[in-house]
Amino acid sequence: MTGTAYGIGVGPGDPELITLKGLRLLQSAPVIAYPAPQTGDSLARAIVAGHLPGGQREIAIRMPMVAERFPAQDIYDRAAVEIGAELRAQRDVAILCEGDPFFYGSFMYLFGRLAEAHKVEVVPGVSSLTACAAALGAPLVARNDILTVLPAPLPAEELRRRLDGADAVAIVKPGRHFAKVRQVLADAGLAGDARYIERATMDTQRILPLDAVDEDSVPYFSMILVHRRGEAWR
Amino acid sequence: MTGTAYGIGVGPGDPELITLKGLRLLQSAPVIAYPAPQTGDSLARAIVAGHLPGGQREIAIRMPMVAERFPAQDIYDRAAVEIGAELRAQRDVAILCEGDPFFYGSFMYLFGRLAEAHKVEVVPGVSSLTACAAALGAPLVARNDILTVLPAPLPAEELRRRLDGADAVAIVKPGRHFAKVRQVLADAGLAGDARYIERATMDTQRILPLDAVDEDSVPYFSMILVHRRGEAWR
Repeated sequence: MTGTAYGIGVGPGDPELITLKGLRLLQSAPVIAYPAPQTGDSLARAIVAGHLPGGQREIAIRMPMVAERFPAQDIYDRAAVEIGAELRAQRDVAILCEGDPFFYGSFMYLFGRLAEAHKVEVVPGVSSLTACAAALGAPLVARNDILTVLPAPLPAEELRRRLDGADAVAIVKPGRHFAKVRQVLADAGLAGDARYIERATMDTQRILPLDAVDEDSVPYFSMILVHRRGEAWR
Repeated sequence: MTGTAYGIGVGPGDPELITLKGLRLLQSAPVIAYPAPQTGDSLARAIVAGHLPGGQREIAIRMPMVAERFPAQDIYDRAAVEIGAELRAQRDVAILCEGDPFFYGSFMYLFGRLAEAHKVEVVPGVSSLTACAAALGAPLVARNDILTVLPAPLPAEELRRRLDGADAVAIVKPGRHFAKVRQVLADAGLAGDARYIERATMDTQRILPLDAVDEDSVPYFSMILVHRRGEAWR
């Protein structure tokens, strides 16, 4: 008998958007682990802070946020060793993931390291994708719509090519790539069909017209939703 | 003061995959509404049956499952009138949606009818997309992967074109289109990278190799996930 690593999607930010299953496993695990910046608070932990029973061992996986160093393989190597030791000691570990663990989550890097030697179960969560659509009141896809999810760091030319002929598009992780994305959308004649939202479902959520966004202060947790026909459900 | 219509994503099937917020609103609404087949039980209602407090008024939106009649506009028209009457009588209505309301959900048709005249709030849920990935233990997208979601009813030629050059693909709603999709994947040399799952997170969940699937008995609630590089996280 060894412990199980649970990759738990804690949802997009509103602490009430965690699932019953995620909450149960989170509260019953003797050890929790979560990504965190080099200094300061972990967002994933902050989302569930009000749910924590106290007395759990905590493993903060501290990651430098400098782009060139991301993902820092050695940091995930060490975290996997530390988590693996807990599992071998028959202690379950709840690994907290913002949104959903398998939707652009850094949990992937731990999963790749843990899954071969340990029991790993993934508890899906509400992803930023559907949370942003809900917060915007903008249906994402209906009927036979094709949905394309584009990471903003892709080159402008690639973004342009993928936007061409797409029905519904979610552009994730705009951050410091926002100016490029806004230009690509304008060039494609899609600026009027695009909606911008940041920190969806959090207290600090903001919805802005694309041209009102300050390109120098776009957070990582933001998204642009585009629907060519304007409204998915018509 | 009028009532609020809550479009609540109840998640993919496991009753424990509803969110705390969805559960709270579901239990406190005096009226619940849900899609249902012409005869028999509603899947959305079945998912939350164990959570219902009893004593709520229930509006079953019964829909013929014959493809030519779907979506039956007159049925949604009548349902919107019935729900609207409750809202005007200052009663909140919890509208249950399998998965997430805005991810290929039939809720869209009610949203289009209710949103202009009433207060409508959408509570996002765990979508089939991330639930299937979790159940398969197959990371969906990482880093700068592009995700394409393709409805299986699309013509083979369109599917073929969209698969070309895609990183990660989710083919939703295979149902009676399974044989066509399997052929398209084989032609594209992607059969080995495709994973099939039906009724993810339900007691009846099945994971099968693509060539072991009986094309005559593929349920609507099934999905094929394809990742060109085999493993998203490597």
